[in-house]
Amino acid sequence: MNAEILAVGTELLMGQIANTNAQYISKRLPEVGVNVYYHSVVGDNPNRLKECLNLALQRSDAVIMTGGLGPTQDDLTKETVAEIFNRKLVLHQESLEKIKGFFARLHREMTPNNVKQAYLPEHCKVIENSNGTAPGCIIEEGKKVVIMLPGPPSEMIPMFENTVMPYFLQKSSYRIESRYLRVFGIGESALEDMLLDLIEKQSNPTIAPYAKDGEVTLRITAKCEKNADAHSLLMPVVEEISRRIGNALYSIEDKNLEEVVGNMLIENNVSLSIAESCTGGLISGKITGIPGISRVFKSGVVSYSNEAKVNILGVRQETLDRYGAVSKETAVEMARGIRELAKSDLGLSVTGIAGPGGGTVKKPVGLVYVALAWEDGVKYKELKLWGNRERIRNVTSLHAFDMIRLHMISKNN
Amino acid sequence: MNAEILAVGTELLMGQIANTNAQYISKRLPEVGVNVYYHSVVGDNPNRLKECLNLALQRSDAVIMTGGLGPTQDDLTKETVAEIFNRKLVLHQESLEKIKGFFARLHREMTPNNVKQAYLPEHCKVIENSNGTAPGCIIEEGKKVVIMLPGPPSEMIPMFENTVMPYFLQKSSYRIESRYLRVFGIGESALEDMLLDLIEKQSNPTIAPYAKDGEVTLRITAKCEKNADAHSLLMPVVEEISRRIGNALYSIEDKNLEEVVGNMLIENNVSLSIAESCTGGLISGKITGIPGISRVFKSGVVSYSNEAKVNILGVRQETLDRYGAVSKETAVEMARGIRELAKSDLGLSVTGIAGPGGGTVKKPVGLVYVALAWEDGVKYKELKLWGNRERIRNVTSLHAFDMIRLHMISKNN
Repeated sequence: MNAEILAVGTELLMGQIANTNAQYISKRLPEVGVNVYYHSVVGDNPNRLKECLNLALQRSDAVIMTGGLGPTQDDLTKETVAEIFNRKLVLHQESLEKIKGFFARLHREMTPNNVKQAYLPEHCKVIENSNGTAPGCIIEEGKKVVIMLPGPPSEMIPMFENTVMPYFLQKSSYRIESRYLRVFGIGESALEDMLLDLIEKQSNPTIAPYAKDGEVTLRITAKCEKNADAHSLLMPVVEEISRRIGNALYSIEDKNLEEVVGNMLIENNVSLSIAESCTGGLISGKITGIPGISRVFKSGVVSYSNEAKVNILGVRQETLDRYGAVSKETAVEMARGIRELAKSDLGLSVTGIAGPGGGTVKKPVGLVYVALAWEDGVKYKELKLWGNRERIRNVTSLHAFDMIRLHMISKNN
Repeated sequence: MNAEILAVGTELLMGQIANTNAQYISKRLPEVGVNVYYHSVVGDNPNRLKECLNLALQRSDAVIMTGGLGPTQDDLTKETVAEIFNRKLVLHQESLEKIKGFFARLHREMTPNNVKQAYLPEHCKVIENSNGTAPGCIIEEGKKVVIMLPGPPSEMIPMFENTVMPYFLQKSSYRIESRYLRVFGIGESALEDMLLDLIEKQSNPTIAPYAKDGEVTLRITAKCEKNADAHSLLMPVVEEISRRIGNALYSIEDKNLEEVVGNMLIENNVSLSIAESCTGGLISGKITGIPGISRVFKSGVVSYSNEAKVNILGVRQETLDRYGAVSKETAVEMARGIRELAKSDLGLSVTGIAGPGGGTVKKPVGLVYVALAWEDGVKYKELKLWGNRERIRNVTSLHAFDMIRLHMISKNN
């Protein structure tokens, strides 16, 4: 079965947002035997929307539409589909009650235009929306199927996972399964060199590297019968890659680095505190995004000023005077200071120059020190990063998490 | 003139990357009189690519293609365009020299397949690539134009800015200018009600609301002669909207809330410190992303544990015992505590339950308190938010920034 993802929304054509819904859906559909051949985006214009939908129905078995289900007059997705399939829009009482309940829970008044969202094409399968007001739906007509989902990812994703994925899996005879291997500390070219014979020889599964923001992801993709064991096709390749690149492979489950590190800390009951300067809370913010981290994350301090470094973290004024705030000496004292202040097993610190200002010849933008203190030791790393403020802060956070990860591995062995 | 953006690349259809090139180009083209009516994405498949390009040439005046200009056999964009326009691919000597120079500068050997990148359709205008090996090109045929650009944004964007924008501006008789108004504190439906007569009556400029992650953006779009003053069309509408919605309008320049607040603090030389619990450093991380903030941001504390709230921020144990960590009383003491610790003008605090665990009947997931302390006062806000952990943390950060913003406005009046 092949599919087209048709996004509806002038905000996409005006460049206000990127079409991340198409990315999300495209990544998941092959797993249930659906190949995505096209993405299309069209605005809130009835004629062009109708044209695009007709074309999609000609060339694709399934059309997944996102957006255009809102309460405003601009929102035309359901109306257009209903017209093409010659169906009426009828009030779905259950959805109306859900929408009313949604507003009641928020103690907000429901405006009349929200009632429009409860009207759906007759004879469709309604997809419940637990995170917003617009229900979705599935319409089958002959061998074709159109699925409508709301535009906001926080609403679209749960609806897609709970209803659309099971819908296609039940129809499919085969599926494609991918594993995403995440690698930190080896560049894309070097990684490709290390795996070249595998990449060239393999046809099932295939191997494809992809670099982004300071790390590399390897996609390993296998095709198999619906009920066959893709695992047995994938795992020998995963194991061979793991053998070759060792500890630089930090996840075989497409988890990001903060998630891997957060879960290592939780599982081993190792507590952490963080003192940040140039990253300004970014690292604490990322690690505290992990559910359950409150059991091991003690506290974080964003010591932007020298005053805060001295008064809160206990960095010596002498150290700051002699070596400067951006130095390995300061990083080490910050790591030890936060560890003692918070009485945690590990103390992590970051100090550096994220730019755009603040750089000198001796200490240019991109110079960053990361340090990690534990009960009977401390280590640090000097980084020389390139890019804008955002990139420098992000890549710094990866190095910081990786330092914790490698420390945990060495302690566990 | 209307345009279609046709992206070529299986990595897009596999969901490895989002089509951010289409977003970038879409945001810029209207400024030079080109309306983007469609985005399409197709894989590295010759038949489907030819179909998509033929369709794009039927329905659009200009087709901007991104991707598929690489050195490998998969890369088919130029070959397909040349075939459709019945032109030969000819060696462009200047491009070949540039590619050779590119490899020489990196001290890498040029592989033979890179020569393919220097072959371009005859009678085209070559677009130089200063950041990679694939040149782009512009082909005119009758009233249609096809523009080919490489896929990596770091190569595509400079080529687009230096060549494609000037190309269209010179051809254009009119242009479209948009302003993005950012609103916090009024929902999309309520906002539409407040502006309904404007939205319905206006045809130039048009007004379109768009909701995302707890806030609403209004896009005001004017069409005018190439050399006319779009400003005089846009500003009366912007002013009327501003009059109606007042302080909820926080930016008329498409700035985000942290940027607006950060710049207010810097301009007024008001220093800030932040104590976060459930947001875990996210708010500090966001505000310290603003260049120049180091002049006014003193420090942040992520007091995840009760211990940290007492020991670092000076919250009274009695307060925690009596009201709990998630209470207005604790939020107020945290805000006062961080303000005193850091000796800043303002002290902001957040405490709440971001989920997925930790909720009770009395204190459910999504209950958050935000407090702000200043020299002679303190205020707090109780939030009842919905959504997953990520959404609750993000929307909390918006409420926190908005509290600072409204405080600054009231102090300045």
